[in-house]
Amino acid sequence: MRPADPPRSGPSRVEHDLLGDRDVPAPALYGVHTLRATENFDVTGIPLGARPRLVEALAAVKQAAAVVNADLGLVTREQADAIVAACTEIRSGRWHDHFVVDVIQGGAGTSTNMNANEVVANRALELLGRERGDYRVLHPLEHVNRSQSTNDVYPTALKIALAVSIDDLVTALRALAAEFAARAAEFADILKVGRTQLQDAVPMTLGQEFATFAVMLGEDADRLGETKALIAEINLGGTAIGTGITTHPEYAARACAALREITGLPLTTAVNLVEATQDVGAFVQVSGVLKRTAVKLSKICNDLRLLSSGPRAGLGEISLPAVQAGSSIMPGKVNPVIPELVNQIAFRVVGNDVTVSMAAEAGQLQLNAFEPVIAESLHGMTADLTAGCDTLRRRCVSGITANTDVLAESLDRSLALVTALSPHIGYEAATDVAHRALSTGRPVTEIVVERTHLTRERLADILVPARLVAPVLLDLPVPGPAR
Amino acid sequence: MRPADPPRSGPSRVEHDLLGDRDVPAPALYGVHTLRATENFDVTGIPLGARPRLVEALAAVKQAAAVVNADLGLVTREQADAIVAACTEIRSGRWHDHFVVDVIQGGAGTSTNMNANEVVANRALELLGRERGDYRVLHPLEHVNRSQSTNDVYPTALKIALAVSIDDLVTALRALAAEFAARAAEFADILKVGRTQLQDAVPMTLGQEFATFAVMLGEDADRLGETKALIAEINLGGTAIGTGITTHPEYAARACAALREITGLPLTTAVNLVEATQDVGAFVQVSGVLKRTAVKLSKICNDLRLLSSGPRAGLGEISLPAVQAGSSIMPGKVNPVIPELVNQIAFRVVGNDVTVSMAAEAGQLQLNAFEPVIAESLHGMTADLTAGCDTLRRRCVSGITANTDVLAESLDRSLALVTALSPHIGYEAATDVAHRALSTGRPVTEIVVERTHLTRERLADILVPARLVAPVLLDLPVPGPAR
Amino acid sequence: MRPADPPRSGPSRVEHDLLGDRDVPAPALYGVHTLRATENFDVTGIPLGARPRLVEALAAVKQAAAVVNADLGLVTREQADAIVAACTEIRSGRWHDHFVVDVIQGGAGTSTNMNANEVVANRALELLGRERGDYRVLHPLEHVNRSQSTNDVYPTALKIALAVSIDDLVTALRALAAEFAARAAEFADILKVGRTQLQDAVPMTLGQEFATFAVMLGEDADRLGETKALIAEINLGGTAIGTGITTHPEYAARACAALREITGLPLTTAVNLVEATQDVGAFVQVSGVLKRTAVKLSKICNDLRLLSSGPRAGLGEISLPAVQAGSSIMPGKVNPVIPELVNQIAFRVVGNDVTVSMAAEAGQLQLNAFEPVIAESLHGMTADLTAGCDTLRRRCVSGITANTDVLAESLDRSLALVTALSPHIGYEAATDVAHRALSTGRPVTEIVVERTHLTRERLADILVPARLVAPVLLDLPVPGPAR
Amino acid sequence: MRPADPPRSGPSRVEHDLLGDRDVPAPALYGVHTLRATENFDVTGIPLGARPRLVEALAAVKQAAAVVNADLGLVTREQADAIVAACTEIRSGRWHDHFVVDVIQGGAGTSTNMNANEVVANRALELLGRERGDYRVLHPLEHVNRSQSTNDVYPTALKIALAVSIDDLVTALRALAAEFAARAAEFADILKVGRTQLQDAVPMTLGQEFATFAVMLGEDADRLGETKALIAEINLGGTAIGTGITTHPEYAARACAALREITGLPLTTAVNLVEATQDVGAFVQVSGVLKRTAVKLSKICNDLRLLSSGPRAGLGEISLPAVQAGSSIMPGKVNPVIPELVNQIAFRVVGNDVTVSMAAEAGQLQLNAFEPVIAESLHGMTADLTAGCDTLRRRCVSGITANTDVLAESLDRSLALVTALSPHIGYEAATDVAHRALSTGRPVTEIVVERTHLTRERLADILVPARLVAPVLLDLPVPGPAR
Repeated sequence: MRPADPPRSGPSRVEHDLLGDRDVPAPALYGVHTLRATENFDVTGIPLGARPRLVEALAAVKQAAAVVNADLGLVTREQADAIVAACTEIRSGRWHDHFVVDVIQGGAGTSTNMNANEVVANRALELLGRERGDYRVLHPLEHVNRSQSTNDVYPTALKIALAVSIDDLVTALRALAAEFAARAAEFADILKVGRTQLQDAVPMTLGQEFATFAVMLGEDADRLGETKALIAEINLGGTAIGTGITTHPEYAARACAALREITGLPLTTAVNLVEATQDVGAFVQVSGVLKRTAVKLSKICNDLRLLSSGPRAGLGEISLPAVQAGSSIMPGKVNPVIPELVNQIAFRVVGNDVTVSMAAEAGQLQLNAFEPVIAESLHGMTADLTAGCDTLRRRCVSGITANTDVLAESLDRSLALVTALSPHIGYEAATDVAHRALSTGRPVTEIVVERTHLTRERLADILVPARLVAPVLLDLPVPGPAR
Repeated sequence: MRPADPPRSGPSRVEHDLLGDRDVPAPALYGVHTLRATENFDVTGIPLGARPRLVEALAAVKQAAAVVNADLGLVTREQADAIVAACTEIRSGRWHDHFVVDVIQGGAGTSTNMNANEVVANRALELLGRERGDYRVLHPLEHVNRSQSTNDVYPTALKIALAVSIDDLVTALRALAAEFAARAAEFADILKVGRTQLQDAVPMTLGQEFATFAVMLGEDADRLGETKALIAEINLGGTAIGTGITTHPEYAARACAALREITGLPLTTAVNLVEATQDVGAFVQVSGVLKRTAVKLSKICNDLRLLSSGPRAGLGEISLPAVQAGSSIMPGKVNPVIPELVNQIAFRVVGNDVTVSMAAEAGQLQLNAFEPVIAESLHGMTADLTAGCDTLRRRCVSGITANTDVLAESLDRSLALVTALSPHIGYEAATDVAHRALSTGRPVTEIVVERTHLTRERLADILVPARLVAPVLLDLPVPGPAR
Repeated sequence: MRPADPPRSGPSRVEHDLLGDRDVPAPALYGVHTLRATENFDVTGIPLGARPRLVEALAAVKQAAAVVNADLGLVTREQADAIVAACTEIRSGRWHDHFVVDVIQGGAGTSTNMNANEVVANRALELLGRERGDYRVLHPLEHVNRSQSTNDVYPTALKIALAVSIDDLVTALRALAAEFAARAAEFADILKVGRTQLQDAVPMTLGQEFATFAVMLGEDADRLGETKALIAEINLGGTAIGTGITTHPEYAARACAALREITGLPLTTAVNLVEATQDVGAFVQVSGVLKRTAVKLSKICNDLRLLSSGPRAGLGEISLPAVQAGSSIMPGKVNPVIPELVNQIAFRVVGNDVTVSMAAEAGQLQLNAFEPVIAESLHGMTADLTAGCDTLRRRCVSGITANTDVLAESLDRSLALVTALSPHIGYEAATDVAHRALSTGRPVTEIVVERTHLTRERLADILVPARLVAPVLLDLPVPGPAR
Repeated sequence: MRPADPPRSGPSRVEHDLLGDRDVPAPALYGVHTLRATENFDVTGIPLGARPRLVEALAAVKQAAAVVNADLGLVTREQADAIVAACTEIRSGRWHDHFVVDVIQGGAGTSTNMNANEVVANRALELLGRERGDYRVLHPLEHVNRSQSTNDVYPTALKIALAVSIDDLVTALRALAAEFAARAAEFADILKVGRTQLQDAVPMTLGQEFATFAVMLGEDADRLGETKALIAEINLGGTAIGTGITTHPEYAARACAALREITGLPLTTAVNLVEATQDVGAFVQVSGVLKRTAVKLSKICNDLRLLSSGPRAGLGEISLPAVQAGSSIMPGKVNPVIPELVNQIAFRVVGNDVTVSMAAEAGQLQLNAFEPVIAESLHGMTADLTAGCDTLRRRCVSGITANTDVLAESLDRSLALVTALSPHIGYEAATDVAHRALSTGRPVTEIVVERTHLTRERLADILVPARLVAPVLLDLPVPGPAR
């Protein structure tokens, strides 16, 4: 969603930077640095304001810095109060449409930070009863950005935004897992053929199959939750390269404490800020875990599509709810469009992970200049996955039904019980039984009785499918050499 | 850019599909199938209308089909005329905001095709003086989609849209190559140290260095141009799975001819339509060539950033134009933000290529259900690269200047000339010279004269840098065993 | 396969380089440069000699250079003759076990080139009746490497080796395609349900399904064949950075001609050698086409596994030949191990393509230092794919059989014929028929006769499956508004 | 390294499986299943025996199973003792050359498990004084594989092998980090220009730069160590699909305990064995963390290559030890071959990670059939990275020296001190100073004294580089509006 751009014609004010003077639209809260950035970067058409969590995280950082700067006597209390008020408004979502730089930008996030500094400064000036652009009173860089650099502000804000996005995804994953668990409970007693390598294997229940999906996603949610520890370590106070140049010795610790309070996140300051400033390892690892989640979701959706294949010429073991007509040419066709949606999300996530890896690898010396594409990739991964989980839960898993007739029939027809004979008659003899059953079409039981020492009664006792979906005591004779 | 959604409240009409009745907003040109799709797919928030080339390509296909259907007596001439008129309007950009389904969707593009069918039908109905939704007169599926299936319409439209996007990119690449060539001409006589593995190697000119960029991108443009042949082969007429079910035996050939005329593209019908319907190999290969281009652009931008490193503590051989202040903390700092932008675009392209590969691999049996993510990835790749080339040309390459003093000085200080001695004194002796020059800081010439048979005059003749940037006749003695 | 290392203890000779003296094992044809490289690079344990095509291509380049160097008076005829003789032996496979550097190495291939220079020199010395290491007579660098640099020798040799590998793969692909075509011919008249999105779609023949595989792979073979043009352009004569330093003005053209003759490949010299020396775009593109092939093979194998799923609880439409027992626990189980093998090869190829992309992107200034990993990746891709195609053909496709009963029954049970009714009764009416048939289990024909204007006789005429696998004249009434 | 194949001609014994009889070479400890697998899978030429950790882990699993099977009365004590003895020999490395199946294989690892079962059985038979192949006494499947399936044995063995490989890598990483830390200590007082985006930024010490590498790798080692928890959860006892069919109810817990004892690893049994049998999420996540490590190593090596660029026309801040001659044409050239080696390893690791992701995504229903390629990819990643770390430490980092003159000079010439003025004179005034210094070449100090309120004395106090590499008290006046 692209917020409307503030108008570019109409009244304006003059602002100045190292390249000279520029007219900035009067209604814009942003200034000359942002203006130039919008001219330099026009790739995606997606403005920063379309990433509200990042905007709000930036405002949180600016707010924390202002408070600490005032405490340390580096800005006046009046300046700090105005900055805090402006940041509070931004965090409530009021000025997102003034965050206009493209999400993909050169400069390691400088333009994003500049945009934030300028919006905060101009809104704070308004709150102080001043004109926008009256930077002698409150300057975007000298006051709003005091004790800061893009190189500590930007990654810190990314981590805060990402922590919130991960929470959302974890919530969506757990809800989806719960929905699968609900289906598993419904299907607990429905026996079926389990398959390995797409070949009939041994009996299981449909409930076991669906419980697997629930457990799998629950584990992903756990692993994602653990990554939050990685991104709770911030480099705020390191400024340009982590040496803390221009900062007061107490700034880093105080700013972290202030930010902890504002965000409610358990943030800590990295022990080595030079390292923390250039390192994007935490982002790479989070990306890897997001990819793990994507891969698992895709696998599950593959299974749902396979199990619901048909309706007549497929496995047809389950039915997915119909959510739209499936074909513009084939009347009555209904397709697994929701799992297919999630598959595609997964493919995008894996691609994004490669993008993150390359961007991380390309960092040089004291900074990784490519954090914006890392940020945008991680945003896409979390947002897509969250939407995918919600859609899958609401529009698919909640309405899945079991085709009990099909399930029962295919278990009957299969040779899935032969494995259970192996401990009793040996692998080789059981292989022979399976072979004969398959080639002749005769029932397994008949062949066994005919060719082994097992009686029909003993067989009836062994081959109860419901007993074969978990370990059982086999009541075997004393072991000896193979038969 | 997301076009405004047509209003969802207010007056409506009732439409029907296999799931039942639904209220469709009265002003909407789309119908019930599109409506359900917007509810099912809400991931990116980017509607189909934000991909104008795809919308226009869909309209071109619908237009071609209508003409041929009328010729074959399958729709009335009046129906066809109305469809053609509606498609013409769409192709002129008039109704893009009625293409509202999310670009990422399940269903192999069915919802996109449905959206097109419905917009065309309803606009055609209006042109016929009928009410929207009066499908007895003109039906989205029975008439607009006559002789078609999503499975031939959608990939055909993708290919048309992609051909146009590739043309744009080729144009942008050639313009960028020309700009590099212009710099190469300016820098033709500026000597410098060529480097391999970041170590001083042998002399070259800065013009040679920049000409390389021009040649490299020109080759990419050539290779991209060649890919258009791959996507000129379409499967229109194959309908559901390529067998052409529901089509007249002459339909495929006639529809291709009509589409060729409408689009001006040299389209041909695939020989085996069953294969062509499920195969996305051409997309994978185009993606691979786009990735090649991205990798090369990134390499070039890495070089630009390296050569312009400094201003004092770097290579400093060239200067990139300053386009914005580089730092919120370091006054006066100017950064290579435009090359950095292009690097990030390249990383996204490589990621997208992986997405395309996975989606292609996941196709099953008679169709690849994941074409929408392939389409969106290819769109992103071409659009990003085109924007990147244009930005790099206008905001960076056009203003690059050479720092001739730095270049001259580093050539003087380097040992880049020693290689030229090798044919005269042998590799081992030259190694010894280089070693002594480096460790003592003495000039190469002095050491050579002192330790080899070469005279100062002969040396002066050999070591003219300007003669060392191309093969030269060496005027060597008769060869013999190594010295 | 790792050739046995020449012994490292026992008698030795002393060689010298810029780092000092070293003992080289007396029996070794390689020298001090190779020795140091084996100490520096010990990652994969795979020696260069395990890549015979690369070794042979290196020898071809050395041979061509020697001939031209002699013609230009840069080495003696006697030296050249000895070099040519040594290279001829190497090309016949005689000394591969003296190529001992690890295939993964730093230094842009320098160690590979050094290894080749040293083996050629020492073997040539032997042929001249001299001692190994008697480099005054024939020097690895001053004579064998005369007019050359690793930076033109290595990529030239890679391209020659790759051209041969691509030929092998194309041969394997065409043989596999032919095998699929043979099955297609056998299965030409077997009707079945075609599927889209794993859901029953419309009728087709099993022959059409298998012909698709043949056509698909044939196209890949064509595309691969086309890539040979990309790698026929070489940079031999560019030496260190493409400026041709140390070469005679006629060297490049003559060496290319000589190499053309030796290899039989249509090699040409790149127009801009500076560009050609640093550019690895051709390798990236070849990698992309190899990835395309891999993706298609994987898709085909997925289909084979799906169609052969069962034997009882799967689709069971075809049977793959049993090549080994499938399970250590499930007696009689047979698995699709050959397609699974090919899937895994494909996954490796896609991974390798990413490796190639990253290595290509990382090239800096006048050279890409990472060509060894590009070379090894491309070797892996071509070798794996060739082995995969051969295995798939011999051990799987050649023995595939059709389960005609299953195929016939599932076509009968399916609703795949309903689409054929659409032109006659309209999409909406046909949707209604499909819906009723599915929910009631009643035959489609009955419902159609009951609820539409079509008679049983007309229906019998329309619904002949064998006529529905290609376009047919429909004999429709004059079109009008939808029914 | 490929172990020698046991001879294929010569005396043989006959073995039987479901496909019929086959001659197995008499000296081979493997049997018919392995024999067929070697014929089916011939891709890499790398036999299982070249992965000793996996072979040993398989033997550990077989050993644990035998002990528990005997305790539960499922094999005789004599059988178990012989199995344990054979496994102990294998774990000591004695029979690795009998593990001959290709590491890339279809069948989900069945052939690997079969190979293990057969080698254990035949060696145990020998220890019992029996003939190889006398399976009535001790059968590979009925006794050695008792209570097991490939589907629990293989992933369990992979995890054990991987845990050991990760330990090795962590050790190598920590040693490398320590080496960087040693350099950091040496370089602690050497001031230099820190750089962001390759542009001169602010002062730092070379010690800080190298300490960063140490910290970065230390974190990676920590993260890798954490992944061991993920792979400590095993599915042994789940057998075919996790339901535990054919096992005694106490088997899983007892086998895990036995395996814990044998391996010394803190293994636990997964709570849901059906999930654990099909899930490869832990492998995907480990792969992601290995990729993180690779990306970091590559970044560090990029930095080393950049900082050591030159010797004359580059940054030249540090020197890497010369380990071999760098060029076959440029005498005296020395290249950063060791960091280049590690870069290439990193590119391979990123590619392998994509392979793992694709293989993981492709798992279907109750099993992932593609675990062999996951196993081989993870093996490659850990082995390559371990070799890379060791090589980088021993052959590069240990010998890095600082070029103190170059470092000092470039700090002097740079504008890196201007940032320190910003808190005193404001961002805008400091920008102006930087601009004038750069364009005129005049010293910063002069310009500042001329154009601001700061005195020469105050300046001297502020601009002490050694004080600018950490936060300092600035002794600023009371803050007010911007100057």
